[in-house]
Amino acid sequence: MYFSKSFIPILKNNPTEAKIKSHQLMLRTGMIKQSSTGIYSWLPLGFKVMKKIEQIVREEQNRVGVQEILMPTIQSSEIWKESGRYDDYGEEMLRIKDRQNREMLYGPTNEELVTEIFRSSVKSYKSLPQLLYHIQWKFRDELRPRFGIMRCREFYMKDAYSFDISDEEALYSYNKFFLSYLNTFKRMDLSAIPMAADTGPIGGNLSHEFIILADTGESKIFTDKRIFEVDSSKTTIDKNSLTKLRENFENYYSVTDEKFNKNEFERNVPEEYRLKTKGIEVGHIFYFGDKYSKPMNASVDYNGKKEFVKMGSYGVGVSRLVGAIIEAKYDDKNEIMKWPMSVSPYDCCIIPIINKNDNSNLEKATNILNILKKHNLDVLIDDTDENISSKIKKFNLLGIPFQIIIGKNFNEQKIEFKEVFKDTLFISLDEIIKTIKNKKSN
Amino acid sequence: MYFSKSFIPILKNNPTEAKIKSHQLMLRTGMIKQSSTGIYSWLPLGFKVMKKIEQIVREEQNRVGVQEILMPTIQSSEIWKESGRYDDYGEEMLRIKDRQNREMLYGPTNEELVTEIFRSSVKSYKSLPQLLYHIQWKFRDELRPRFGIMRCREFYMKDAYSFDISDEEALYSYNKFFLSYLNTFKRMDLSAIPMAADTGPIGGNLSHEFIILADTGESKIFTDKRIFEVDSSKTTIDKNSLTKLRENFENYYSVTDEKFNKNEFERNVPEEYRLKTKGIEVGHIFYFGDKYSKPMNASVDYNGKKEFVKMGSYGVGVSRLVGAIIEAKYDDKNEIMKWPMSVSPYDCCIIPIINKNDNSNLEKATNILNILKKHNLDVLIDDTDENISSKIKKFNLLGIPFQIIIGKNFNEQKIEFKEVFKDTLFISLDEIIKTIKNKKSN
Repeated sequence: MYFSKSFIPILKNNPTEAKIKSHQLMLRTGMIKQSSTGIYSWLPLGFKVMKKIEQIVREEQNRVGVQEILMPTIQSSEIWKESGRYDDYGEEMLRIKDRQNREMLYGPTNEELVTEIFRSSVKSYKSLPQLLYHIQWKFRDELRPRFGIMRCREFYMKDAYSFDISDEEALYSYNKFFLSYLNTFKRMDLSAIPMAADTGPIGGNLSHEFIILADTGESKIFTDKRIFEVDSSKTTIDKNSLTKLRENFENYYSVTDEKFNKNEFERNVPEEYRLKTKGIEVGHIFYFGDKYSKPMNASVDYNGKKEFVKMGSYGVGVSRLVGAIIEAKYDDKNEIMKWPMSVSPYDCCIIPIINKNDNSNLEKATNILNILKKHNLDVLIDDTDENISSKIKKFNLLGIPFQIIIGKNFNEQKIEFKEVFKDTLFISLDEIIKTIKNKKSN
Repeated sequence: MYFSKSFIPILKNNPTEAKIKSHQLMLRTGMIKQSSTGIYSWLPLGFKVMKKIEQIVREEQNRVGVQEILMPTIQSSEIWKESGRYDDYGEEMLRIKDRQNREMLYGPTNEELVTEIFRSSVKSYKSLPQLLYHIQWKFRDELRPRFGIMRCREFYMKDAYSFDISDEEALYSYNKFFLSYLNTFKRMDLSAIPMAADTGPIGGNLSHEFIILADTGESKIFTDKRIFEVDSSKTTIDKNSLTKLRENFENYYSVTDEKFNKNEFERNVPEEYRLKTKGIEVGHIFYFGDKYSKPMNASVDYNGKKEFVKMGSYGVGVSRLVGAIIEAKYDDKNEIMKWPMSVSPYDCCIIPIINKNDNSNLEKATNILNILKKHNLDVLIDDTDENISSKIKKFNLLGIPFQIIIGKNFNEQKIEFKEVFKDTLFISLDEIIKTIKNKKSN
């Protein structure tokens, strides 16, 4: 892709309305554009990142055997009256009257709707467990939307739901999601810590938040540093292995300020391992038994007896992760961003120095572009006639992890090549391709 | 995937509320489930088909150089007041008041929003053309939603918008979409005819509908049969080649009843080539110049002069195509469906005869499943203990194009293998794999 043909409207300066660095960077690099309060359009650069995140989330759901469906954005109020949440939900729920004056709403979450789908489709315990997820837009009419897409009104989320015959089986499902979330965030190069959490309006008595460390995070966290060493790579999808994984994490004290207890923290965590910092919630899982299945009469036949199914729900903020990754990875002092390779909008950029009336560097750049394309690498090439220092400044903000710079003393065997935050190398194109591909396959 | 673990809630009979065959089949095979009037959830089988359609649409947009963005579902009324359509649109527009009492709406289309994005981002004619598309949920509050997802309220659409400096350049953009749509529908094994069309509420003076033939279609069409022979396979993305393609189609009379003129039809089409039938609209493209750019002041600097950009818009009904394909491909008399390979929910199914207390056929089936998986084929295996005739009946409805049947006289070299609507073969697994892969790569 040529920069001059792309739709990446860069701003010269940080927009004053943006208070946190992800919001600043996303506006500045034209990833998003606000369309109304707390509602954003995703422009090509932001869209590409979000789609890559979505695909990782999807693959990791599929890997633990969750089936994808898609529920609509607009729901009827009836099922919410059945569960008892229609009145509870308050003004954050966007309530709508259609032309027939029926009470509708824009789904803020989907426990009710998925329970309705389940109860009308599944009759026997033999069809259990059922694990279903969808990735869909949601709406919460926040009183004060802020921080760009981190606390907006229309947002993109994966939510999953599990249906089981017993508490024991339901915990097995819960633990599958626990592992799946660890793997999901790891693929985005994020260290997400699972923390025991309150259940809030979803309800239930077992819940974990997955939190990534970021100075600008909205949650205070208190944790034992050793939790970062817990290894989930050998965990397999069976009850024992998953239970063990949960135990390994729960060995270490790790809570948000809601659950913080100073005495407990100091009693359980040796001073050298204590970490007090801030974090951002990127996932949240809940087990709530028959909280919805009972009022909504979602039961199965279990050897002639009617059993209410045991349910859990499991959310990942897909659009929110775009911002969370920036909060974790963007060095805003030096204005340098580096996307994790797995979600980067492009694999590599090519930055030629272009002087007026001299296209030779652009030609060299185009030749390299064509070779990289043949290796299935997605490349952005800067064909504008800006000077090199503003080009570098711009690409440092764009955060593409690899830069090829084509200047005066171009030498095919010693091409100027830089991985962001690392030293410049002078290597051949073959070595460049090897380096990028190696990073991609990690 | 094992049928017993899948979430495919099959109905025994056609639901009485469904009046057309796509609606019947989609409910019957558990592809969708109505959640409220004119609003549906997509269950795994339907979801898989829709996603494959979406991906084909996406690839063909990318191929002609359109960039993907994503606009939100909820819009502010302000931009609709600027364009003058807020009052015109009537009750089909779902109007919403948020908690601050601001007038919002669920986007029925996006000319206004994309114009707003364009005008705030692009300043110079040098950045033109800009071709942008998105694939998003839309809402039209139909007075009488019916025919399942064919005429529903919440639906999934690709819409694209072009921005050019002149009429001539804008026609070039228009023609790119013209070609792209032909290729899109061809990949779904649909013969879509482009027909000169009225522009309706979108406005403008040039428009084509893409219509596929189906007895149950809502549009009457009058066409010259020779239009099916027009070859677009050699058309390239340049002005001359695309203009020639348009001309080749426009040589033949082809209109819907809105534009039908009996005398013209009989004068232009020799009797042997006249075709009067019904069709379903699956795509619609419009050129409308400065209809939106002028009132919304979307202009670029053109050598010191302010020029309003010339715009077009281009829609494909992604969710609607699921139904349209069924209307075109489902033999409802014999209750046999066959999905085009490119959008089929599975590549192949395995149907073992399973007798009580005898799992040997299921084991054989599982062995074959594992081999097919290694060849990246997506397979549904019927592990239920239904009798073989109800299994076959069920799979004829599911419409997976290839069936492997494992019965009493299983012979590894002569496996019972059937492509739907064709004769049963007895061939080796290697030959089966070759046949399926061959069909997939077409």
